[in-house]
Amino acid sequence: MRSEVSQPLSLKKIHVTDPFWAREIGLIRQAVIPYQWKALHDQIPDAAPSWWAHNMRAAARAVAAKKAGGLFVPAHHSEKIETLPEDGKKPLEDAFYGFVFQDSDGYKWLEAVAYQLMSRPDAALQAQAQEAVDMICAAQEEDGYLDTFYTLTDRDRAFTNLRDNHELYCFGHLAEAAVAWHQATGKDDLLNAARRFAECIANKFGPDKERGCPGHEIAEMALMRLYEETGEIRWRDLSQFFLDVRGTDPNTFALEENRRRAEKGLPELPVSSERYRYHQANVPVRDITEAVGHAVRQMYLACGMADEARVADDAKMLDACERLWHSVVEQKLYITGGIGATHVGEAFSRPYDLPADTAYSETCAAIGLAFFARRMLQLKPLSNYADVMEQALYNTVLSGMALDGQSFFYVNPLEVDPDACETDQRLSHVKAVRQKWFGCACCPPNIARIVSSLGQYIVTQSKDTLFFHLYIGSDMTVNLGGSEMTLRLEADLLKNGDVRLSVTDGEAQGTLAFRDPAWASNAQVKIPAGVKSWSENGYLYAKGMWKQGDQITIHFTMPVIAVKANPMVKETMNQVCFTRGPLVFCAEEADNGKGLHLLRALPDQVAGAREKTMAIDGLTLPAVVLPGRRIIAPDENAPLYAPWTPAKTEDAEITLVPYFAWNNRGKGEMRVWLAAE
Amino acid sequence: MRSEVSQPLSLKKIHVTDPFWAREIGLIRQAVIPYQWKALHDQIPDAAPSWWAHNMRAAARAVAAKKAGGLFVPAHHSEKIETLPEDGKKPLEDAFYGFVFQDSDGYKWLEAVAYQLMSRPDAALQAQAQEAVDMICAAQEEDGYLDTFYTLTDRDRAFTNLRDNHELYCFGHLAEAAVAWHQATGKDDLLNAARRFAECIANKFGPDKERGCPGHEIAEMALMRLYEETGEIRWRDLSQFFLDVRGTDPNTFALEENRRRAEKGLPELPVSSERYRYHQANVPVRDITEAVGHAVRQMYLACGMADEARVADDAKMLDACERLWHSVVEQKLYITGGIGATHVGEAFSRPYDLPADTAYSETCAAIGLAFFARRMLQLKPLSNYADVMEQALYNTVLSGMALDGQSFFYVNPLEVDPDACETDQRLSHVKAVRQKWFGCACCPPNIARIVSSLGQYIVTQSKDTLFFHLYIGSDMTVNLGGSEMTLRLEADLLKNGDVRLSVTDGEAQGTLAFRDPAWASNAQVKIPAGVKSWSENGYLYAKGMWKQGDQITIHFTMPVIAVKANPMVKETMNQVCFTRGPLVFCAEEADNGKGLHLLRALPDQVAGAREKTMAIDGLTLPAVVLPGRRIIAPDENAPLYAPWTPAKTEDAEITLVPYFAWNNRGKGEMRVWLAAE
Repeated sequence: MRSEVSQPLSLKKIHVTDPFWAREIGLIRQAVIPYQWKALHDQIPDAAPSWWAHNMRAAARAVAAKKAGGLFVPAHHSEKIETLPEDGKKPLEDAFYGFVFQDSDGYKWLEAVAYQLMSRPDAALQAQAQEAVDMICAAQEEDGYLDTFYTLTDRDRAFTNLRDNHELYCFGHLAEAAVAWHQATGKDDLLNAARRFAECIANKFGPDKERGCPGHEIAEMALMRLYEETGEIRWRDLSQFFLDVRGTDPNTFALEENRRRAEKGLPELPVSSERYRYHQANVPVRDITEAVGHAVRQMYLACGMADEARVADDAKMLDACERLWHSVVEQKLYITGGIGATHVGEAFSRPYDLPADTAYSETCAAIGLAFFARRMLQLKPLSNYADVMEQALYNTVLSGMALDGQSFFYVNPLEVDPDACETDQRLSHVKAVRQKWFGCACCPPNIARIVSSLGQYIVTQSKDTLFFHLYIGSDMTVNLGGSEMTLRLEADLLKNGDVRLSVTDGEAQGTLAFRDPAWASNAQVKIPAGVKSWSENGYLYAKGMWKQGDQITIHFTMPVIAVKANPMVKETMNQVCFTRGPLVFCAEEADNGKGLHLLRALPDQVAGAREKTMAIDGLTLPAVVLPGRRIIAPDENAPLYAPWTPAKTEDAEITLVPYFAWNNRGKGEMRVWLAAE
Repeated sequence: MRSEVSQPLSLKKIHVTDPFWAREIGLIRQAVIPYQWKALHDQIPDAAPSWWAHNMRAAARAVAAKKAGGLFVPAHHSEKIETLPEDGKKPLEDAFYGFVFQDSDGYKWLEAVAYQLMSRPDAALQAQAQEAVDMICAAQEEDGYLDTFYTLTDRDRAFTNLRDNHELYCFGHLAEAAVAWHQATGKDDLLNAARRFAECIANKFGPDKERGCPGHEIAEMALMRLYEETGEIRWRDLSQFFLDVRGTDPNTFALEENRRRAEKGLPELPVSSERYRYHQANVPVRDITEAVGHAVRQMYLACGMADEARVADDAKMLDACERLWHSVVEQKLYITGGIGATHVGEAFSRPYDLPADTAYSETCAAIGLAFFARRMLQLKPLSNYADVMEQALYNTVLSGMALDGQSFFYVNPLEVDPDACETDQRLSHVKAVRQKWFGCACCPPNIARIVSSLGQYIVTQSKDTLFFHLYIGSDMTVNLGGSEMTLRLEADLLKNGDVRLSVTDGEAQGTLAFRDPAWASNAQVKIPAGVKSWSENGYLYAKGMWKQGDQITIHFTMPVIAVKANPMVKETMNQVCFTRGPLVFCAEEADNGKGLHLLRALPDQVAGAREKTMAIDGLTLPAVVLPGRRIIAPDENAPLYAPWTPAKTEDAEITLVPYFAWNNRGKGEMRVWLAAE
């Protein structure tokens, strides 16, 4: 393994103290986790039910009945992949309800709880989590199989539809939760459940067994994590098998579909992989050149690929990861760190197709991008990976949740006109107001787990170097060159670019590397005398003997920047948006009135931008006031078309707030990209 | 009736000689009508079948069997409103196939043929049309009912689903064809069929009978025409009934749906009209304030309303027509004369929502707008009506058909990127290339009938005034003040704005009124001495005694005009398009290369536009060359986002061709609206 490969710190070793992010992590603990526990138990009034607890308990009864030698008669069969109680009828006690991937809601919740427990023990919360763990373990079948959908429908059809039926996806989330739970509590109850399910899967699929791979990726990276936690190499092998088989002909999704069709006497479909772009099974993974299909799936696959590149030092896989990265970052990324430009298949669109108003930009996809970026940073410390990770975290990931943690966006558009998206079926995926919960509730618990594990994105460590990727205030304990020391990182990027790193205890020999963010045009760095420093790949390296009291201070300039998109992006032609540090700003109706498309920003006068703070839902947040113009709205009877004349404008102050904070002051228009004059 | 009300001339009295349009009319006769005859008989290889002749013949056999006292057993029931033969199987001889409105394909063809025969007799064509007439008459049931869908499925369910099942729509097209056929040939075979069907309908629906109205309007205007042709006032009454009942509570579409639901034991739906925007049955017609729902339906309703306003001198109806007109023209009209901004329901979108690339802009809707405009002109000679009628005819109506008459657009976008619309499901309604025929083939025969009857759009005549609405060269015979004279209108707007009207024979006392088009900033008029002239509502009136040899010449300036949209149209922010006379121009890849969005037009330098001609598919057409700029395309690895700098551009000549002529030189990008520098 190359020496530059790095690992995140245990969450027991890093504690976030950042004024902004510590509040977010606390909000997850105090508001979001309890709220989601209620959601898992269908106790949020007027919200779509999760069915998680219902399904787990029903499955546990079915498993117990089978163990007792009884007969379990399913209420539904597995043909229906989404089931709901009949109109107006009470749910059947023993029926599966919701989407086939409903089990994952609870696994994600549990994973978030485990991260929270790692940074701060909490007996009551741990007891609640233990209840969930017990429910899950009780639902596991004797052969290790653990998926309430098939347990409650047709267990004998398990693994017959990997493409659609998400059991390997649920496994992946189970394994991720199990590793986190094990790390947090030392308990192996859930870890053993994950291993038993993994073994059940490995008994079915493998080089000398059946060919197959996940229809929704995550098992790949989860198996790598299970391998790294347990040291059991068979899980790495299974992950590699899933990666290797994907996108090769005859395509396994086609084969399994043909088996299902044969049962019904239907003719065979072609077994070429080309049809499976949505599932990233169109080409072998090492041949990937473009991010395609369902954006979350693509990112989770990318994570598994990056883990494989790291764990197996697989150069071809690393090349593929890099090509995938460039495809996203150079052609398919919203300025907000969102990905997935089309609601059709929640998918990547063609290069440079990045519409603002019809954007999908799913919260989970931005989370997946941050996962991928962190893994690329582990492989190679290039600041671009961290820039994009930061862009996703501070903008789309946060936008997915209201400031009070009680409502969520699944879709994160860059332009909203509530009148339009509430009446226009072409915009039916765009909500003007965050929702309490979703039938397909992937995003809320995904936010909870990434924010709760934020410490693992701030720094990573190789043998002798500690990399500071994000400037998020935190206290940490590291072991460099065999010696332990504690460090304090002080930063508050929502205010300014001042960063201070102090050695608060101990001493150690090694290198500290600080990212030079793309948004900082200038950095003033003070390092202790005698420390050797150099710059490489967007990081400033400082190598020396570190001891208590040492400080490094960096002042990054953090001006408001007027940003333009590559001219190949048609949708932002003649438009500009504004950023400051990691934050993308947007105009809201609350500050600028209706008709945001009439505003004309003056990118040449960005130096005249005035920074101020604004209270939004009790938080003090940065805002920007720009000199601008506004087209004088024509009267109602003005002609639709007229000979060209310059638009009549008046002076207008344009007030911008952070994109992540939009829609926390009632329903209204919002725009990230403004017309440029 | 107010004296200003005017009527079109009989097509026997006006003969189009215009260099451009005479070719179009000839093309319809020589290419389109024979082609469509084949289409009606499913003889176009690789094109979607029409099923028209198949259904008519099958229905005739069923009717004959019933008359002979036999039993007809339907192959399908009426639950399925679109039926096709089973995969790979031969069509059943006695089954109905295609959409429920398939009968109208042939009626429209027949109407177009009748118009052609009026301006030029043709025994062979008439014989072919007679064959169609005979097929239709043979399919009429004993009680006058004539709709092959119900005749071939469940005749006893006729009139139970007016909302969806189009039998009143088919009746409307039958009546329109019958009147035209009667006028062309003097034969009353088809007219009697239409009357008998009308009587069958009138026996069912009316003030003291069942309430109901057409789910797709056209019967309203068709009945008015039947009344005007036959003098039988009951058809006017039935049209009025359909107009009066529409949009009133309890809504008739809800009532009939509830009857159908009751048969199945389903609960009742609310009977409020609000739900029926798609069908323009959301409010009573005299209360209409906004163009809504399916655009073709809305226009056909508007025609019926305008006919009613004229025939019954109904002031409230006229007010509603005017509000509807303003709603379309001031808020919902593409610069190309197209309407219907969304493919969802082929419908009007909200005011000012006029996207270029996802536009629906159905050919038939532009045709309907021209129908409506002509009727408004008959009511009130305001030049705006004629301006919009001309805009629709010269641009979207013509764009609907290839220059060779062999392929057709249903959807007329204002921006096309073939790569995008061939791969993006959000653009699946947009075709980059005209199609041979459509399963729902409303547009091709609709083009045939409007172009074949173009003479009825050029002039209309009130008691003492002849209005020249369109400057399309033609010879005509008019009777003014009791005296007949022949006139020759010479014009060729594709070249210039020179117009000459000559009295070629006879003499008469009266007024000639010439429209002053919105596109002409300046008109030099020469009128004979002693003629009194004045301007009013965009028309120049000339009153006098006219005699052989008199001439009026008008020179309209026809510069290239840079046009901007109302700033409430978000989609054309900072964009410009170019027109000259009635033509809207567009940029095509064939002249400007790929990446049309990179072009920057210079609206301030429009005076530097150079006119030229261009040969496209053998036609000599006007083209415009503009000085402009082109953003230098960035290299593939250019960043997606960068700090604002002015775009790097190079000088570029921008070549524009008429919008109607686009996609006659192979597949490529097209844009009407260009970015403005």
